[in-house]
Amino acid sequence: MSTRPTFADITDQFAAQEIELPSWAFGNSGTRFKVFGTPGTPRDPFEKIADAAKVHELTGLAPQVALHIPWDLCDFDELTAHAAGLGVRLGTVNSNTFQDDDYKFGALTHEDERIRTKAIDAHLECIDVMDRTGSRDLKIWLAEGSNYPGQADMRGRQDRLHDSLSKIYDRLGEGQRMVLEYKFFEPSFYHTDVPDWGTSYTQVAALGDKALVCLDTGHHAPGTNIEFIVMQLLRLGKLGSFDFNSRFYADDDLMVGAADPFQLFRIIHEVIRGGGLNSPDIAFMLDQCHNVENKIEGQIRSVLNVQEMTARALLIDTEALTKAQRAGDVITANDIFMDAFYTDVRGDLAEWRVSRGLPADPIRAFRESGYQEQIAADRVGGTQAGWGA
Amino acid sequence: MSTRPTFADITDQFAAQEIELPSWAFGNSGTRFKVFGTPGTPRDPFEKIADAAKVHELTGLAPQVALHIPWDLCDFDELTAHAAGLGVRLGTVNSNTFQDDDYKFGALTHEDERIRTKAIDAHLECIDVMDRTGSRDLKIWLAEGSNYPGQADMRGRQDRLHDSLSKIYDRLGEGQRMVLEYKFFEPSFYHTDVPDWGTSYTQVAALGDKALVCLDTGHHAPGTNIEFIVMQLLRLGKLGSFDFNSRFYADDDLMVGAADPFQLFRIIHEVIRGGGLNSPDIAFMLDQCHNVENKIEGQIRSVLNVQEMTARALLIDTEALTKAQRAGDVITANDIFMDAFYTDVRGDLAEWRVSRGLPADPIRAFRESGYQEQIAADRVGGTQAGWGA
Amino acid sequence: MSTRPTFADITDQFAAQEIELPSWAFGNSGTRFKVFGTPGTPRDPFEKIADAAKVHELTGLAPQVALHIPWDLCDFDELTAHAAGLGVRLGTVNSNTFQDDDYKFGALTHEDERIRTKAIDAHLECIDVMDRTGSRDLKIWLAEGSNYPGQADMRGRQDRLHDSLSKIYDRLGEGQRMVLEYKFFEPSFYHTDVPDWGTSYTQVAALGDKALVCLDTGHHAPGTNIEFIVMQLLRLGKLGSFDFNSRFYADDDLMVGAADPFQLFRIIHEVIRGGGLNSPDIAFMLDQCHNVENKIEGQIRSVLNVQEMTARALLIDTEALTKAQRAGDVITANDIFMDAFYTDVRGDLAEWRVSRGLPADPIRAFRESGYQEQIAADRVGGTQAGWGA
Amino acid sequence: MSTRPTFADITDQFAAQEIELPSWAFGNSGTRFKVFGTPGTPRDPFEKIADAAKVHELTGLAPQVALHIPWDLCDFDELTAHAAGLGVRLGTVNSNTFQDDDYKFGALTHEDERIRTKAIDAHLECIDVMDRTGSRDLKIWLAEGSNYPGQADMRGRQDRLHDSLSKIYDRLGEGQRMVLEYKFFEPSFYHTDVPDWGTSYTQVAALGDKALVCLDTGHHAPGTNIEFIVMQLLRLGKLGSFDFNSRFYADDDLMVGAADPFQLFRIIHEVIRGGGLNSPDIAFMLDQCHNVENKIEGQIRSVLNVQEMTARALLIDTEALTKAQRAGDVITANDIFMDAFYTDVRGDLAEWRVSRGLPADPIRAFRESGYQEQIAADRVGGTQAGWGA
Repeated sequence: MSTRPTFADITDQFAAQEIELPSWAFGNSGTRFKVFGTPGTPRDPFEKIADAAKVHELTGLAPQVALHIPWDLCDFDELTAHAAGLGVRLGTVNSNTFQDDDYKFGALTHEDERIRTKAIDAHLECIDVMDRTGSRDLKIWLAEGSNYPGQADMRGRQDRLHDSLSKIYDRLGEGQRMVLEYKFFEPSFYHTDVPDWGTSYTQVAALGDKALVCLDTGHHAPGTNIEFIVMQLLRLGKLGSFDFNSRFYADDDLMVGAADPFQLFRIIHEVIRGGGLNSPDIAFMLDQCHNVENKIEGQIRSVLNVQEMTARALLIDTEALTKAQRAGDVITANDIFMDAFYTDVRGDLAEWRVSRGLPADPIRAFRESGYQEQIAADRVGGTQAGWGA
Repeated sequence: MSTRPTFADITDQFAAQEIELPSWAFGNSGTRFKVFGTPGTPRDPFEKIADAAKVHELTGLAPQVALHIPWDLCDFDELTAHAAGLGVRLGTVNSNTFQDDDYKFGALTHEDERIRTKAIDAHLECIDVMDRTGSRDLKIWLAEGSNYPGQADMRGRQDRLHDSLSKIYDRLGEGQRMVLEYKFFEPSFYHTDVPDWGTSYTQVAALGDKALVCLDTGHHAPGTNIEFIVMQLLRLGKLGSFDFNSRFYADDDLMVGAADPFQLFRIIHEVIRGGGLNSPDIAFMLDQCHNVENKIEGQIRSVLNVQEMTARALLIDTEALTKAQRAGDVITANDIFMDAFYTDVRGDLAEWRVSRGLPADPIRAFRESGYQEQIAADRVGGTQAGWGA
Repeated sequence: MSTRPTFADITDQFAAQEIELPSWAFGNSGTRFKVFGTPGTPRDPFEKIADAAKVHELTGLAPQVALHIPWDLCDFDELTAHAAGLGVRLGTVNSNTFQDDDYKFGALTHEDERIRTKAIDAHLECIDVMDRTGSRDLKIWLAEGSNYPGQADMRGRQDRLHDSLSKIYDRLGEGQRMVLEYKFFEPSFYHTDVPDWGTSYTQVAALGDKALVCLDTGHHAPGTNIEFIVMQLLRLGKLGSFDFNSRFYADDDLMVGAADPFQLFRIIHEVIRGGGLNSPDIAFMLDQCHNVENKIEGQIRSVLNVQEMTARALLIDTEALTKAQRAGDVITANDIFMDAFYTDVRGDLAEWRVSRGLPADPIRAFRESGYQEQIAADRVGGTQAGWGA
Repeated sequence: MSTRPTFADITDQFAAQEIELPSWAFGNSGTRFKVFGTPGTPRDPFEKIADAAKVHELTGLAPQVALHIPWDLCDFDELTAHAAGLGVRLGTVNSNTFQDDDYKFGALTHEDERIRTKAIDAHLECIDVMDRTGSRDLKIWLAEGSNYPGQADMRGRQDRLHDSLSKIYDRLGEGQRMVLEYKFFEPSFYHTDVPDWGTSYTQVAALGDKALVCLDTGHHAPGTNIEFIVMQLLRLGKLGSFDFNSRFYADDDLMVGAADPFQLFRIIHEVIRGGGLNSPDIAFMLDQCHNVENKIEGQIRSVLNVQEMTARALLIDTEALTKAQRAGDVITANDIFMDAFYTDVRGDLAEWRVSRGLPADPIRAFRESGYQEQIAADRVGGTQAGWGA
């Protein structure tokens, strides 16, 4: 008698799934060589939220939208109401201390106290925004580092980073948290101040319970076993959020699941194994660039990819797997694992979607909705949103 | 009796060395996150040439400047005269078929004949420029590829690439050449149409003697033994030019020799071994970004790094090395090799520089010249040159 | 009206598929740290062939077995008859010039003519074996290179390699071929004499039509787009054979499809695109190590993985894909591609298998057959086969 | 007035340097493809110690020798006396829980309590050895992990690892310590139980002050900034020891400084920056394989490489560097850093060596000593030491 879960067994679990969208995914993005614009690209945070709400409307998966400050600076009471009106909420607030000339050689780590203070203040303002929007998480990605050996005192920067983060941490209110993202390289090409999970972990562990690690799936050295890190951070109680995307080379920021769907499956398996699925303590966000594909469709495809891999991972016959693992039966253990991955859940998911009043095929529904044509016609004039690089 | 060359023995060889500077190195550059501007950045090709000429004036190493079209479009008769007046020549012409909206999904490889023809024509215009400037080489870097599996028909693109290159090849005049650069990834993140030396080689071999490979030292997969490729291309008679720079991670475009000076030494050793040093058939160019350092100083440091590693590589005791290699004496062979690398040639080079009427320390001389202050004061208003991304 | 193929449409194509097994996969293997032995491991080529035949009996996929000389030296008339009696044939002959003390510093590339001649002779003896076994292909993997900069004259070695290969090539008989494998690194850790497809290609292109490239899927730098190389070699008419396996890090030699099934799907898509599927000119071999899993099951799983991914790749709706590619519709093109990958063909394949008199689940059938228990009981005493390292 | 240190200024610092040799470096080693034997290779721990003592006699740098249990099992009172008689001491004790059939699927992490206990006991026996030899450090390298997704419960293994390490930790005596090594991959090819510094750090931090991290310079993902990790571990007070070696690809175990001398320089700079140079709390060990070069010469070259790079790193003009860093003067900071690296200290070191009664050129002295010929003649018969793989 099989102990393998059926689709019905797992419905409740993926039904509860929520994936947070990044407002900037709807703006233009590209490489240092070229940013291609596209008709209909939002010109302000309100239009970004509208696009995000469309993704949620068609998938039921994405009720929350992350903001990036200062890119999304506006009247946050209005924005909050606008979002609510469209059926979504404002979520994680992302700080930016890498686009001011003062930050050329660092922000929270800078040698100059004036600049450090400026960078700290920028974060405090983000917390002000959180107070207004009701956001829980302040996400900090530090684009800091150096390009040449000798350019920077890595040790001193690490100490200053701790001091700066402490000041920001102290400002966090009730129910607010800080998540610290790490990244292997870029925009710095010799050293990065928070290059790996170990650094992020030791920095946040030194602060307290409200500081956690943010794991961006594209921010690792080649060959890194990312699901191992997911396991470890869950074990240590320090996984605060995901930035999902996928990559073949560097921080490619492709649609999550596009480059290596099996890796996404393995990551979600460890999330489930560690009790992280649908945990209120972990934010599942996207952080992607849609350089060449339609941005709204790219977001829809991405949340569906996460949902599909979650469903597959939930189908693992855990009891049989454990038995095979204990027996040292490598082939059977791997077969059980792969069986779940290879099971095509798309038909079941489409049916389930329909049962919830959602379109069976959200991308087709988007195309048939005329939304893209509408925004292309409406959003004429003004400056398309982008990264401001 | 040692067979190791002395500094005097090698003087003639490095005295003949010429390194070509890229005009774009003097403009602003950065990452997709931010481009930092700096006082004194050139606003047009004439100012770029002036900065490049300063590098040559202080080092005697850089009599030629590569152009990038359309970034450097101007009156080329004037520019040629301007360069000559400053003691330098115009060199390799670099084409750009990656910044027009039409090229979003390819240029020379595009499915649409109209766009392919447009891209071919852009290259023909580059050859027109070469006719005006007297440049020998057309350098083609193809920023083409795809971001997602299934997005593109890689095979068809390869065939179309051959057709497009053939049409450009046919337009080459007497004494003109085409060099085809390869790159592992970026700006495309799934496939790149010319990703490795094998592809560049097979494409140019199918064209004829006037088509050669350009090796950019930053364009390889992690761990690639670049000096092996240098050896192989020299052996095959197909090494047309170098784009020198250095990297720790991806195409970081750091100053050549900065990340791994020993690698630069090994590359130049293979250039010497293969008869490529000071060969009229090989262009030794820089292709770098000075995102955070002074750009003119960055170029000076780079050409000096190439010169220093050339001098060290020339000091290898080839006779003793060969003997140790034949004897299978690994320790001695490696010791002989390292002995040359570890020999500090800087003092000798400074003396030699003085003997040629050049400053002993070109970077100090640049700082003392007041040139930077002068251009910062003069170059006010207008738009600083950059990549136009 | 969909243009997507049905399972019935593609049956003939995968029905013709043949995958060659390596005799050495049935012997013990491991790492430099430890080789674990297992009950039932073959002690001679005859027992290896018996195990391979079992794989074919249960899957119908593996009618041919590759040999490794000298590991499989024996009376080849007897071995040929033994194989035929078990329903399989002897296939590719693999040479070994890396386990004799003379080859410490090279074999076909060695500075010493005596050793080069010895290595050439070892290959001529392999061709003698081919004459006896009726094998078509001589597969050459060169474990040659150096560990330290300066240790070896890479250029001279490349020239000597050409000379040695020429002598071997000249001995090839009617209908015989040579395939030259490349490998990024290991057992040498600084330079490898045939490290990439470009080197293998240029070496075999210099020999003639009977020399081709062997692509081992585990022998590339991190991040390499392997399907691109498959495409390119097919385009150049120089893909002679595959060594299938999978990897997360280096030359891990895991079961093909285990590390990244989507990559295997993409590779087979390019095989189909390039006309290579079921081509008589391309040998589809496995080259794997089963360090911790049951070896016969490991081989069964591997050939099934290739078959499953072939079936999925054949399901791509090529017509619709081409249309989406031409339209620059990235999302649709990727969706069509992924749709085939995500389609679960396992049930259809099981039915088809049964229709051909094969077990629906070959691994279960193997377990129920009692074969493993039988060989564990029978193969007592003697020396278990391994790599003799 | 320059603030750059002179050679005289730094003499005391490098004079105090001690580098620990691994006993196994004198035995045979190789790859999974072949282990080449050489005349004179030790047959037992006593001969290994004799070879190690020769390295110390000629360099004055290596007064301590690390042992590997069970490879070096013998009468430790005799061995201690033997070492003392030759002027060296016994040092770090390395455990081995990867070569017993029981450990095929893990040792300290194994699902089966019996096997875990056996592995724990093996470590307790190592501490018994330490009690006899007076060694301070127990070094634990865990060759544990899995080859296939699904094969192992990574999370459970991490918990069991903690339990096992705790039991070993509790047995540590006064003045004894445990250092836990991490490694990116090999011999496992999907997951490794201690794959990165973060995991080693969090495991040892959970134990107490006597548990520290061991950093092997060859055990990182491609591109990893190792000096950053050195900095971080020193900052966290958890750097217990180094395993020095170098690599181009994976865990190549080449002579330290051979692959990238500039990287070694940067690592030692961070050691100095963090107060780790000549710290009694940090063991500076080699962990290398001399597959193709003379083993004793390989060890001499390695300790000299560390000494030379230490001397260069000590020559950095820290005051000027700090000033340039604070000023954001990238070119000057990098120049100051490189100036020390490029300074040829070999002549000064040779003179200093002579002043201490050591040979100017230890490798030449070794060759002239006749030691190698002597051991080749003497060590006939018996079994050459190796890894027993």
